[in-house]
Amino acid sequence: MLIIGESINGTIPKVSQAIYEKNEAFLMELAKTQYGCGAQMLDVNAGVAGRKEVEDLPWLVKLVQQEVPIPLMIDSANPDALKAALEVYHHLEIPILNSVSGEEGKWKKLFPVVSERKVKIVLLCMDDRGVPKTIEGRITIASRLFDRLMKAGIPEDYVYFDPLALAVSVESDAALVTLETIHALRKQFPKSHVICGASNVSMGLPGRRLINRTFIAMAIYAGLDTLFIDVRDQAMLSTVYASSPLLNKDFYCMEYLKAYRGKKILA
Amino acid sequence: MLIIGESINGTIPKVSQAIYEKNEAFLMELAKTQYGCGAQMLDVNAGVAGRKEVEDLPWLVKLVQQEVPIPLMIDSANPDALKAALEVYHHLEIPILNSVSGEEGKWKKLFPVVSERKVKIVLLCMDDRGVPKTIEGRITIASRLFDRLMKAGIPEDYVYFDPLALAVSVESDAALVTLETIHALRKQFPKSHVICGASNVSMGLPGRRLINRTFIAMAIYAGLDTLFIDVRDQAMLSTVYASSPLLNKDFYCMEYLKAYRGKKILA
Repeated sequence: MLIIGESINGTIPKVSQAIYEKNEAFLMELAKTQYGCGAQMLDVNAGVAGRKEVEDLPWLVKLVQQEVPIPLMIDSANPDALKAALEVYHHLEIPILNSVSGEEGKWKKLFPVVSERKVKIVLLCMDDRGVPKTIEGRITIASRLFDRLMKAGIPEDYVYFDPLALAVSVESDAALVTLETIHALRKQFPKSHVICGASNVSMGLPGRRLINRTFIAMAIYAGLDTLFIDVRDQAMLSTVYASSPLLNKDFYCMEYLKAYRGKKILA
Repeated sequence: MLIIGESINGTIPKVSQAIYEKNEAFLMELAKTQYGCGAQMLDVNAGVAGRKEVEDLPWLVKLVQQEVPIPLMIDSANPDALKAALEVYHHLEIPILNSVSGEEGKWKKLFPVVSERKVKIVLLCMDDRGVPKTIEGRITIASRLFDRLMKAGIPEDYVYFDPLALAVSVESDAALVTLETIHALRKQFPKSHVICGASNVSMGLPGRRLINRTFIAMAIYAGLDTLFIDVRDQAMLSTVYASSPLLNKDFYCMEYLKAYRGKKILA
């Protein structure tokens, strides 16, 4: 299980402001807090309206790298920003690019960088027609994009499929389709990974964190192995820690017990 | 989803003492509290060492019936106590007998009552050799017992399979085998139900309630439709309420929203 902290994201107003103002203290604290909470990788997104992502993203990558010793997920749809970020990235572990979808315009811009730099990559199960309503529709896109990556020589375990989760308040089968797609992806691509954000499913409902962590427990059982979460949400993280012994993925419950002794568990 | 309150159980020391002392106030309060928390059925167990269950169980059934308007699960391995309890049971909904297993001695004692009175029944997936370690072993027992009930004219939807959950601290695949058995039972017996207690999985570990409710979220996704829980555990009940909209079993999230407005949700 890989736990990725989602919070350094320029689409969040406070983070956007901090990037705009080059507020290093705020951003370093955000990196340090997530690392302290248990994040094993941090997403870094500098996509702030009106600013130059090509300059901001490498600046942000450098800053976060100074502060925490974990690899980063580079979150950008801009190939030049991505290339500039990779120039300054220096962790020994290969970064993950978040993300590429089957939208041809975006694919054409980002795929050459992925192919040349051989980075790990999140593949969104959507294309120019949007997010398919069915499991089969999402798997079809996943297969098509996967084949292209294989032809480019990207190893299977560099691929992180994102089945995409939509709001159950809008489409009543939204979470169920995502769960079943996770299960199908794990079966069809056993050497690759499945990543999914949780927060979309609960949009429009009260008690969102409860719904998010209940969804994550089900998703982990379905085959999710890469978490993209707010690691500062201790109840969410506790659910993640409790999942491993239940699925025989935590030898002698050692990781769970370590987290419990480290006061990371909210029982 | 059927939510059964597990707490009126003579094997719990305080409850045992209350039954022994005929402490009506304590037991009525326990019934009322569980009903108030959202229980749709209550388990009633008078199996106290040194007492006469044949007298205690019907007394307890009468007492609880006076207090709450919901049906009961009659929890006994004693055919005479069961018969006496059924004599005084007066709810219009058919009670569930908890439980019969493939242990031949117990089966021979209880099956005639089930067959004659056509009550609903929990079938434990174990026999005289104990609880099988494998999914296939448990399904084999389930099938054998199911066939006997069908021959006796018991409707398929009167059957509640209990795949049994053991401690992950003892057997690392204990919860996983249970989850996969739930999935297999739902597939093989779509008109019947699957019930499971949660508390065994966490035995021997700290943070038991967290592990229990994480297990329940996974089990509901696997196909569990009958909950046997401590309904006073609000975090557990919240997990149960959050599960239905995620699995497209709560039209317009109405049940979840009702529970939220009724302050039953611990988000």
